[in-house]
Amino acid sequence: MALIVQKFGGTSVADLARIRTVAARVARTRASGDQVAVVVSAMAGETNKLVALAKQAARLPEEREVDVLLATGEQVTASLAAIVLQAMGVPARSFLGHQVRIETDSAFGKARIVRIDADQLRQTLEAGTVAVVAGFQGVDRSGSITTLGRGGSDTSAVALAAALGADACEIYTDVDGVYTSDPRIVPHARKLERIAFDEMLELASLGAKVLQIRSVEFAKRYGVKVHVRSSFNDNEGTWVVEEDPSMEAVTVTGVAADQDQAKLTVRGVPDRAGVAAQLFGTIADANVVVDMIIQNASADGSTDMTFTVPRSDYDRALPLVERVAGEIGARGVAGQTDIVKVSIVGVGMRTHAGVAAQMFRTLAREGINIQMISTSEIKISVVIDARYLELAMRSLHEEFIERR
Amino acid sequence: MALIVQKFGGTSVADLARIRTVAARVARTRASGDQVAVVVSAMAGETNKLVALAKQAARLPEEREVDVLLATGEQVTASLAAIVLQAMGVPARSFLGHQVRIETDSAFGKARIVRIDADQLRQTLEAGTVAVVAGFQGVDRSGSITTLGRGGSDTSAVALAAALGADACEIYTDVDGVYTSDPRIVPHARKLERIAFDEMLELASLGAKVLQIRSVEFAKRYGVKVHVRSSFNDNEGTWVVEEDPSMEAVTVTGVAADQDQAKLTVRGVPDRAGVAAQLFGTIADANVVVDMIIQNASADGSTDMTFTVPRSDYDRALPLVERVAGEIGARGVAGQTDIVKVSIVGVGMRTHAGVAAQMFRTLAREGINIQMISTSEIKISVVIDARYLELAMRSLHEEFIERR
Repeated sequence: MALIVQKFGGTSVADLARIRTVAARVARTRASGDQVAVVVSAMAGETNKLVALAKQAARLPEEREVDVLLATGEQVTASLAAIVLQAMGVPARSFLGHQVRIETDSAFGKARIVRIDADQLRQTLEAGTVAVVAGFQGVDRSGSITTLGRGGSDTSAVALAAALGADACEIYTDVDGVYTSDPRIVPHARKLERIAFDEMLELASLGAKVLQIRSVEFAKRYGVKVHVRSSFNDNEGTWVVEEDPSMEAVTVTGVAADQDQAKLTVRGVPDRAGVAAQLFGTIADANVVVDMIIQNASADGSTDMTFTVPRSDYDRALPLVERVAGEIGARGVAGQTDIVKVSIVGVGMRTHAGVAAQMFRTLAREGINIQMISTSEIKISVVIDARYLELAMRSLHEEFIERR
Repeated sequence: MALIVQKFGGTSVADLARIRTVAARVARTRASGDQVAVVVSAMAGETNKLVALAKQAARLPEEREVDVLLATGEQVTASLAAIVLQAMGVPARSFLGHQVRIETDSAFGKARIVRIDADQLRQTLEAGTVAVVAGFQGVDRSGSITTLGRGGSDTSAVALAAALGADACEIYTDVDGVYTSDPRIVPHARKLERIAFDEMLELASLGAKVLQIRSVEFAKRYGVKVHVRSSFNDNEGTWVVEEDPSMEAVTVTGVAADQDQAKLTVRGVPDRAGVAAQLFGTIADANVVVDMIIQNASADGSTDMTFTVPRSDYDRALPLVERVAGEIGARGVAGQTDIVKVSIVGVGMRTHAGVAAQMFRTLAREGINIQMISTSEIKISVVIDARYLELAMRSLHEEFIERR
């Protein structure tokens, strides 16, 4: 007998017919003798609808209240899934974030899980009842409802799997698994049988959108075996696992793009201590996550600072950056939203030299200008003009994956 | 400086435009120096939509889970109202039932408030912040979400007013106040300036639908001054107040109808001790509230028992009653849903004789057959065939109210 966490995304619970399909799968797993905790997202489109409603209500709605609003999406699915399971004769009970309880910090809209008290959940499972947990949501210490950000239900699922010591965390989605690239952009992309946590981490953070990055961090830290698979068939998907030596033979595992990026440049920043801290401190205080940062020294004793932020935070970040730019005596602020970050990822890069040069050559051959570069041990990213997105990805996929 | 609870029903918060109107009213009250706690219902139609969804999910959805589903309606309105208030520069904060916290028993779908811990709410109000409370919902001791039944937001509002020691509880609705009868049925119905708690209690329980009965019970018990008024204008509405001697001059204050009634008859019940307890105990265990009960002795040593239940509980009650009828050896069960209960109400009845006879004469004159009769100190109710609803109400209104 195993304990399995099964997470179903928005398209898998888009309507009652699909919720019944999900319930049937849960019932089969339970019938085979396993304990099942189910984590559900909001029905497809619901979260976007609620976000739109909040924006109609106010141009910049307060984030605490937006979370109260958004949390209803998963609450609806959790109760419906429990009702459908019960109607099929499967004992089931819904749990909201505060009922589990999943405690988070108070960063509304992108809260982090700090503690899970899974005692009641465990008792429920041990009694043979399916626990249906509303994903994406938690509660902060003061009792306010929080949400975990886009894709947060993945993190709910993996964190619960860790807290429960589950044997596996199955992430059911509308794709068959993790691909070498986005098949909608790169026709030759193919499904991976397995992928290392670190690779998945880079791909998730690069916008592969299969799993929320925090869910992979959780999985890696607590050794949760994650199986990404389709909710529409019984095919094996992709296992996200610990790295093993055989993986190093492959230089590049995936080519990813992140289109949710915007670029900000502060020109003529006076070259004195503390200005960067002031700038990025202000941005961090607004809970905006800065990704890449580049600083170029100019001849006249001032520098230009360029950095990227999530496109969804751009409107909020721009006035903050302009204010700080004024305070520190910078020359001005320029912004650009029609950019994209394209990356190649692979644990094999650790042992292969010249990968970066090969990447830049490939892009140069297509006449694609590189605006920013960032690298890690197992990843190389470039920011380019958004119009080159498809060309860049196909060229890199051909060069590094199809040719090998 | 006063502390006011303002409750807004579904039609008053039907869309964002109306929520803005509500917020403007709240802002005016606060600007005049008062502390304001706002209680909101779900947007008009939302609760029905969610109920329909639950019924699509399962024929008899488990009530605990239905409450989880239904509670999202008020959660959406509370967050939106807080967002709109904040956008108008009014500090505001939403509270869900479990956040207040409003503790109830575990009778899902019709829970009763057992305790309110209003400390956090009071601190919020004293800080000058408007507290926007999701009506209709609470939490039981074990942490499960509960709902208070149709119109439960009225009870939330009055109970909060009692807990906070509020100076008034304003119930904003889509009508101007409490009328002598339903104006859609009785064209000559007129608005009452004031009405006694006990009269309101009878009218609420008789289906006047202006206020949920429990809210009036709460108001009476804790002496909460309730002002029922329109959210669409600034007219004075109807004050629900303690009875005073001048009210006795009026025999009948209102004529009400309750269309949410169904009748069940158990025929040939063996005449022995305990059968009534067995029958009504079973029904009570299913949380079905029986209203009128009549028992007729037959010649053959058995009796017929007739009673009414809410029409919405009829489908659930019928199989239970049939089962018990079999167990106790009754001859059979008959049910009827096309009935209506019509009542006249007035504290003046205590001091006026012959009111019942006058009522029966009025109905007899119109050829309306009376199926069941029930009376209290200040009320006389009759169950009649549903087709006579309008005729009966208009005749009684003319006889007792227009003629006086």
